[in-house]
Amino acid sequence: MTFNVPLNYRPLSAETLPDYLSRSPALRERLGGKPADWTVREVSDGYLNLVYLVNGPDGSLCTKQSLPHVREDKDWPLPLDRTAAENLYWRTIGPHVKGLVPDIFHYDPELALIAMEQLSPHQVLRYRIVAGETDPGVAAKVAEFVARATFFTSDFYQKQEFKHRGIAELKDNHVLHRIMLELVYQDPFIASPRNHWTTPHLDAFVEEFRTNGRIRAAAGRLGYKFLASPQALIHNDLHAGGVMIAGDDVRVIDPEFSTFGPIGVDLGIFIGHLLLGYFAQDGHARAGEDRRPQQQWLLDEIASFWFVFRERFLQLWRDHAAGDAYLTSGFSDPVGKAVAESERVRFVDALFEDAVGYAATAMIRSTIGYSHFAELETIAEPDRKGAAEAGALSLARAFLLGPHRFATIADVIDEAPRHRRAPGSHFAPN
Amino acid sequence: MTFNVPLNYRPLSAETLPDYLSRSPALRERLGGKPADWTVREVSDGYLNLVYLVNGPDGSLCTKQSLPHVREDKDWPLPLDRTAAENLYWRTIGPHVKGLVPDIFHYDPELALIAMEQLSPHQVLRYRIVAGETDPGVAAKVAEFVARATFFTSDFYQKQEFKHRGIAELKDNHVLHRIMLELVYQDPFIASPRNHWTTPHLDAFVEEFRTNGRIRAAAGRLGYKFLASPQALIHNDLHAGGVMIAGDDVRVIDPEFSTFGPIGVDLGIFIGHLLLGYFAQDGHARAGEDRRPQQQWLLDEIASFWFVFRERFLQLWRDHAAGDAYLTSGFSDPVGKAVAESERVRFVDALFEDAVGYAATAMIRSTIGYSHFAELETIAEPDRKGAAEAGALSLARAFLLGPHRFATIADVIDEAPRHRRAPGSHFAPN
Repeated sequence: MTFNVPLNYRPLSAETLPDYLSRSPALRERLGGKPADWTVREVSDGYLNLVYLVNGPDGSLCTKQSLPHVREDKDWPLPLDRTAAENLYWRTIGPHVKGLVPDIFHYDPELALIAMEQLSPHQVLRYRIVAGETDPGVAAKVAEFVARATFFTSDFYQKQEFKHRGIAELKDNHVLHRIMLELVYQDPFIASPRNHWTTPHLDAFVEEFRTNGRIRAAAGRLGYKFLASPQALIHNDLHAGGVMIAGDDVRVIDPEFSTFGPIGVDLGIFIGHLLLGYFAQDGHARAGEDRRPQQQWLLDEIASFWFVFRERFLQLWRDHAAGDAYLTSGFSDPVGKAVAESERVRFVDALFEDAVGYAATAMIRSTIGYSHFAELETIAEPDRKGAAEAGALSLARAFLLGPHRFATIADVIDEAPRHRRAPGSHFAPN
Repeated sequence: MTFNVPLNYRPLSAETLPDYLSRSPALRERLGGKPADWTVREVSDGYLNLVYLVNGPDGSLCTKQSLPHVREDKDWPLPLDRTAAENLYWRTIGPHVKGLVPDIFHYDPELALIAMEQLSPHQVLRYRIVAGETDPGVAAKVAEFVARATFFTSDFYQKQEFKHRGIAELKDNHVLHRIMLELVYQDPFIASPRNHWTTPHLDAFVEEFRTNGRIRAAAGRLGYKFLASPQALIHNDLHAGGVMIAGDDVRVIDPEFSTFGPIGVDLGIFIGHLLLGYFAQDGHARAGEDRRPQQQWLLDEIASFWFVFRERFLQLWRDHAAGDAYLTSGFSDPVGKAVAESERVRFVDALFEDAVGYAATAMIRSTIGYSHFAELETIAEPDRKGAAEAGALSLARAFLLGPHRFATIADVIDEAPRHRRAPGSHFAPN
């Protein structure tokens, strides 16, 4: 498979980037001085992009350019349309999430390049979790982001045409959509050659996810809901690597997988990755180090995340209902207002079950699927890594087998510690 | 609001149509002889199109051309994109529903014109119902159509890209999509100036649909599901006026409102209109005429419709699963096969509750909304018309208030007779 690349497309290097940027008067003014005065530092991370930090005498920016292939694998081609999708996402949600995302300065479709606010001295939440740092309040900010980004792109705020047009604009990003679908909802439950895992530690889990009927039914339902419930424009990859933090300043980045889907996907991915961080703590603790405060902090953040999301989404809906669903003019009398409130609570509380399910699929794909992440991947010692991963898989398994046992976020918090495992080389699902 | 019309667009008349058709060698050959030998008869019906039947020495066809306005109201402009939508629908489902739809011969986007098989001596099911004819087996054929058209466009057969592309192609038909949304799911539950009804007969029902909290909540949920559950490419207007019948030959027509939506919409609209026909029988009976056989026939057809749809959809899924949902390779072992069957049954049975709900909204919009239909509209005497309409509204109300009371199609059949009303001028909802 190959993809069309615009005629003028070329990947920019640290050497060629300043000349390119200097042709934009706005960017030139932002940086100040002359291109020769600008410093460029590559900070590419993840699978997909070239990322540079540029600093000038008067200001700074960050550029993100898509590559026509997986960054570390030139034989896995990728289309450049994902930059258009990222730009569409920023353009759509931007007005509603100010202060929670980077400012966007520049979009060049030919080069598949976006220039945005440089987030400095921000750090990636994932690496802070691995390092044992705690950031009380971070999840509340991400919850505010999810509530605003999804409410303002839902049928409770938008007209029907918005979604049809949005799906049409995003359809060219089908390669990334397919990757996400297959890597999260399909591969981990079949014998896909892309799967890999810590072995023999997790072999029994891998076997069970492929054979247990109830688990496969639950995963099938979550996959179907992902395909057939476009409730809002979702980020679709909202793990702790997509959250940058500096003190109270929290920003969400990297929406190239965005699609119209279930709101529970964004909730579940973020909760799932905080849980991965929770199980990873034992593996990262140095001799004599007590990571119980970090573990408690992560569980507290999960609770905050759900409570803040729930409260904010409900309040946004009360204050800004304008969409084609539950037309406000049909609910403006006292009884109608009470009925609308009841429907809102019913809808938001139903998202909780989805969030638990998508937390499970996020943990499973990160442990036995194709893409693994630093929370677990950087645990050096295999028996401790396996133990952390087995804990995450064990909890994910419980989520899929007994969603009725997780009626509130307190049930999730209470259950997590029961799934921690001591280091070893073989872990059984139960 | 105005819409772009292609430069060469012109509505064809009975006089100008033969010359147009003769420029297509295929159509000319089909009709045979010379244009002067062809007879043209206008049979336009419905709100939207010019329809002509053309007969030649060797064959016949039917043309359907969109008008840039509502047929009877030049001040209500309509875009021509609905013909592209109709063509897309035929092109997409055509291979899967042979013998259940007309053959399509020709599509001209500039003139917004489709030439198709002339259905002769077919009659419109709706008018046969009004006339007191019975057609045992017709609903089973329509059920086969719905099962095939929806299964083969669902995530159980198609890949994710199919739906995104389809929604993109259909998005230009947004004016018709908006009409359907507003007329069915919004207007009847608010004080819209487009609503009209037999008055004073139905005043109390109209008032209740706008004020009862449970009814508004139920209608709101159905409207939201319509917006946010693209399960398949649905016909979206599958009433008895869209079904042509000649003996055993049954064809579905007029898909210009087609969209990706809940499968229960197609099921519910058809059931709802058979129920309208059921309640209409008393109003159409001549003095001394006994329409009980027709009533029984219509209830029997409703039962057949559900049973055949359920069985066919399940069997198609068993035989042709190929989509991104419930990936077949994950369910190919004995346990997996059993789990997949359980999931199929669960999914299809859940459609029943949707069908009951959408039957209610179909009956309500047809009685107190903007578009009324011949089943009820042609009852001459107001007190009998009001009684028939009140019966339909009363049953629709029961569907919305107590969906849990309608667990099977037998519950629907048993309940319908309890809602018949004797002629009068005022009807109370309960």
